[in-house]
Amino acid sequence: MSEYTALSDLGEFGLIRRIQNTIKLEQKSTVVGIGDDAAVLEPGEKNIVVSTDMLVEGVHFDLSFCPLRHLGYKAVAVNVSDIAAMNALPTQITVSLAIGSRYTVEAIEELYDGIRIACENYKVDLVGGDTTSSNAGLVISITAIGEVAKGEAVLRSTAQPNDLICVTGDLGAAYLGLQVLEREKQVFMDNPEMQPDLQDKEYLVQRQLKPEARMDVIHELKELGVKPTAMIDISDGLASEIMHLCAQSGTGAAIYQDKLPADQQVLNTAEEFRLDPVTCILNGGEDYELLFTVNLADLNKIRNHPDITIIGKMTEASEGVRLATPSGNTFPIKAQGWTHF
Amino acid sequence: MSEYTALSDLGEFGLIRRIQNTIKLEQKSTVVGIGDDAAVLEPGEKNIVVSTDMLVEGVHFDLSFCPLRHLGYKAVAVNVSDIAAMNALPTQITVSLAIGSRYTVEAIEELYDGIRIACENYKVDLVGGDTTSSNAGLVISITAIGEVAKGEAVLRSTAQPNDLICVTGDLGAAYLGLQVLEREKQVFMDNPEMQPDLQDKEYLVQRQLKPEARMDVIHELKELGVKPTAMIDISDGLASEIMHLCAQSGTGAAIYQDKLPADQQVLNTAEEFRLDPVTCILNGGEDYELLFTVNLADLNKIRNHPDITIIGKMTEASEGVRLATPSGNTFPIKAQGWTHF
Repeated sequence: MSEYTALSDLGEFGLIRRIQNTIKLEQKSTVVGIGDDAAVLEPGEKNIVVSTDMLVEGVHFDLSFCPLRHLGYKAVAVNVSDIAAMNALPTQITVSLAIGSRYTVEAIEELYDGIRIACENYKVDLVGGDTTSSNAGLVISITAIGEVAKGEAVLRSTAQPNDLICVTGDLGAAYLGLQVLEREKQVFMDNPEMQPDLQDKEYLVQRQLKPEARMDVIHELKELGVKPTAMIDISDGLASEIMHLCAQSGTGAAIYQDKLPADQQVLNTAEEFRLDPVTCILNGGEDYELLFTVNLADLNKIRNHPDITIIGKMTEASEGVRLATPSGNTFPIKAQGWTHF
Repeated sequence: MSEYTALSDLGEFGLIRRIQNTIKLEQKSTVVGIGDDAAVLEPGEKNIVVSTDMLVEGVHFDLSFCPLRHLGYKAVAVNVSDIAAMNALPTQITVSLAIGSRYTVEAIEELYDGIRIACENYKVDLVGGDTTSSNAGLVISITAIGEVAKGEAVLRSTAQPNDLICVTGDLGAAYLGLQVLEREKQVFMDNPEMQPDLQDKEYLVQRQLKPEARMDVIHELKELGVKPTAMIDISDGLASEIMHLCAQSGTGAAIYQDKLPADQQVLNTAEEFRLDPVTCILNGGEDYELLFTVNLADLNKIRNHPDITIIGKMTEASEGVRLATPSGNTFPIKAQGWTHF
């Protein structure tokens, strides 16, 4: 006899009740949470920001190496990252799930454990959602809501030539983490006796499986009195995101290759996989770091920040979006991004 | 050569640009729509309400008889219906799609045509979303946002004994519409030469394929000076929804069978399918009418409203939730609802 519970034994309402019982509401602006036709929020004088992201099994995640708890955490983090990229504070999320029949109640509770831990970490209230069955895999759709004082939202379209281009943390690790996990999966499928070898790859794997939204940097910039002139989060890769900032701001950009921040594990593993590390850093997605621009006058406030690297400057649109190599050459940057289709 | 465009030819960004070009923003509270990491809204002094619904191919819709344009319309309408059930006005939606590879660009544009028509009809701005691929069918996840003056949101939990129980429109038609469509699909699969016979079933089919949120009634109740004491929309069937109202308000209810509103096509078609019409009316889902309670003092304001029927009254919880038949018997109402799992 199985020790797991089939979803059909509990039913949709039973599952919702079980999940509902674990939810605490912390945000002052949450008036009514789960349990009615809609949640009721009272943002007061503030503006609200709304973002939504969908994760599809087999497209965005592979459960053979992604634990459900990590997946739940990541699904929240990537949405919070969009809120951070508006210079806003996340306040509420709704979670909709389409669940294949092979999932057990315990599996879905694992997923919600990760969601709940992320909600606690980012101080976000889970205020609504929808739960349904799916004929295929798992689909997770999250909508995140945040608050920002009027006029303080930072858009993609407001960078100016000569603004400094900054990035948080380091880049390329999540992409290489995925390569490592896929290699180990292949090894395991060829020989199920083999244990995965993740030595010296811990950082890469963690970045892939459990990314964090950079709310810490949003808070720190506020404390430093720096309001970015434009901002975007790096979900599809630096190249793709800088192209968005430039296209929407009507600028060009010069990125200095030797300034691009990368962990030593990225450099070593790129070599091991015979990949160009610069390509991994420029086009590897899912780092969920922030890419933003600041006025030159703010240079001294951020130049010594340990989590912020200045990687270039915005230019006139006519100069294009270019990468300057250490040898002095420049090349146009091309966005490879992710084409899911 | 095909005259259709594969999604892979256009890519995600291309598809988003194409859709984006057709979007107009009308709501005063929409500051920034699609095109940034998040939408920016300015609700001012009002409260906002947030609701989300997911529609999954093969579970909630069958494209062999549901045109994509209708599906897009319905996906918006069912979300607006949740906003209506809070006594709020819908203002914005986000739309996330997971799209199987067999869909063409033209098919997705059909879907968005329906979404756009619904947005225009309900005066809602499409402000964000996500578009991704799916290994299986189509998944549509919509989050709707609405506005309501502080203190004017109507919850499920605030009905009192002796309140009148009201329902808008008529019930059971969407469920029978689905039975009709499934029968015709079966006939067609058995013999593709056969044309569907929908004579005297037009209303049922329309109710299934193109339901409307009852925003008209929300506006009219406001004009009449009637604020419901509790409200819910009927997505899972009257029986299930009255159970929710009673459980959350801590009341019982008495529903009079001979007051239940049904179209003549419902009665005729139930007979034709050898179904109990009362069961269809009580347990047939997807009508998206409103079920609400009003204080007895408001009786005269609503008794002659052509789209509102008084079907019973709230009672003490100890009396249970019961159906009174014309012969004077009463039976406990059981929620059958929809168990997707």
